[in-house]
Amino acid sequence: MPATPVTSASNSSTTLGSPAHPRVSVLGLGAMGAVLAGTLLAAGHPTTVWNRTHGRADTLRAAGAIEATSPAEAVSAADVVIVCLFDHASVHQTLDPIATHLAGTDLVNLTTTTPEQARELAAWSETHGIHHLDGGIMSVPEMIGHAGSEILYSGSPEVFGRRQDLLAHWGASTYLGPDAGRASLEDLAILSGMYVMFAGFLHGAAMVASAGVGAVEFAGRAAPFLAAMTGGLGGLAETVDARSYAAPGQQSLDFSDLSHIVRASAEAGVSTEAVQMVQNLITRQRDAGFGTEGFARIYESITDTTSRSHR
Amino acid sequence: MPATPVTSASNSSTTLGSPAHPRVSVLGLGAMGAVLAGTLLAAGHPTTVWNRTHGRADTLRAAGAIEATSPAEAVSAADVVIVCLFDHASVHQTLDPIATHLAGTDLVNLTTTTPEQARELAAWSETHGIHHLDGGIMSVPEMIGHAGSEILYSGSPEVFGRRQDLLAHWGASTYLGPDAGRASLEDLAILSGMYVMFAGFLHGAAMVASAGVGAVEFAGRAAPFLAAMTGGLGGLAETVDARSYAAPGQQSLDFSDLSHIVRASAEAGVSTEAVQMVQNLITRQRDAGFGTEGFARIYESITDTTSRSHR
Repeated sequence: MPATPVTSASNSSTTLGSPAHPRVSVLGLGAMGAVLAGTLLAAGHPTTVWNRTHGRADTLRAAGAIEATSPAEAVSAADVVIVCLFDHASVHQTLDPIATHLAGTDLVNLTTTTPEQARELAAWSETHGIHHLDGGIMSVPEMIGHAGSEILYSGSPEVFGRRQDLLAHWGASTYLGPDAGRASLEDLAILSGMYVMFAGFLHGAAMVASAGVGAVEFAGRAAPFLAAMTGGLGGLAETVDARSYAAPGQQSLDFSDLSHIVRASAEAGVSTEAVQMVQNLITRQRDAGFGTEGFARIYESITDTTSRSHR
Repeated sequence: MPATPVTSASNSSTTLGSPAHPRVSVLGLGAMGAVLAGTLLAAGHPTTVWNRTHGRADTLRAAGAIEATSPAEAVSAADVVIVCLFDHASVHQTLDPIATHLAGTDLVNLTTTTPEQARELAAWSETHGIHHLDGGIMSVPEMIGHAGSEILYSGSPEVFGRRQDLLAHWGASTYLGPDAGRASLEDLAILSGMYVMFAGFLHGAAMVASAGVGAVEFAGRAAPFLAAMTGGLGGLAETVDARSYAAPGQQSLDFSDLSHIVRASAEAGVSTEAVQMVQNLITRQRDAGFGTEGFARIYESITDTTSRSHR
């Protein structure tokens, strides 16, 4: 990768940029990167884009974006560098050769990484004098710039402070503090809940299919019920924070035994994995003598990794 | 258990009952049975109650219920017998000795059982000339008789038809057809979704706890997101019904790989079981060559039990 000499990567005084519309550069034009770039372009930001493979920038170029032929060229034209690549390894492959060009730049990394990887990139950025903000996108590309779009951020409070207006073009922005791993952690934690919920729903759909019931018909009853049950998550959370599993009024673990659901799943001829996962969390607490305590106590099965041999 | 001789278990012409308020008998006074009985009593039905162990009927007696000393005595005074016992075995323990007394009676079984057990009770009822309706309660006891309470029914269409007004006192009633196992199947399928969702949420809460974030704070962001994501269940269901996993516009299984979430969970020091369960469903489809198809294809991992060796 050629390291084109550039004098400064952070110069908002050229004719291309302005204080209201700093120049942005977007590295990575997958489905998400392309829509992030397109949204900023539409909002009036001079936008330069780069992708490892060619042919992804045609629509953006037609709309006024400049396509750079290298990451170095891309960042030389930017006040703010947005990174949305395949994974943490590709972030380093792309940025390592141009670290000196990025010095003094605001770097917003929206690549999906683990919290530890986000913290590693923060330390790397610190070493090179780069101002790093990490983001976790809680939206699909189609939602970016529209109602319901939300991105969590953590890392440099200065970058979040001076780039808030820019970030707002993508959706609601929430800053979670200076720990660069925090946004990724919460993003992945919330996505865990989503993917697990989807799997639970599809498990239920597979069960009723054994009686000839279609998934859409099932969704008509199950989706409103599950939406209503999200109203109970706050109560579970209060119990967890207070560790008040023994307080009265809770559905007990003994009552929550799912062996009949595991059995019904097997009778319906479908995999029992989804419900067996929950049953294992319940069983570990019952085996430890907490059967009369509340269902929220399965949280202790999740955090107590010493009991994982029961898996 | 003494089988007290009774002439007829279905006699609504006594002074105690009326066509508008048939006499009911509730067998089983756990938390749910007690509230089912209390609701009918408050609605004006002459109500007899029985519980295997004594001391559970005091509040109901004070409100006007009659406590029977045996199941036989209880059903002799009833046009409709409601059963809400511990499990399928206790239903048979209670009803087998009084089968002849139940002949001609409307029997509404709200005990939580598997679909196969509900079908077995339907066959047993048929043998003894009992009119059997099976119910799956999609509510906690506190909700019975209030907004949001819903009970699914299947089995005898005649019982559902002539007891609709009575059943309506408990909440919304949905009749799913003559297969007695259908209500239980859908009830357990929907509860699968709920329990799995709860586990996914608590998994996320455990992840963020590693960064010192409380569960209540997490719920403030996660619960509205999960509620919004239930809006996507209908779309997943349409894809499943049409088996249109290869249609464009879906998030692919390759993109849905959860290895970074599994890794982040391990880095946070919590069990990976919840997300590993979903990852296993994804991996089986990717291994089978469907990585570019949509996420809903994990449904095939659930229904194809021949691939379960990957567990």
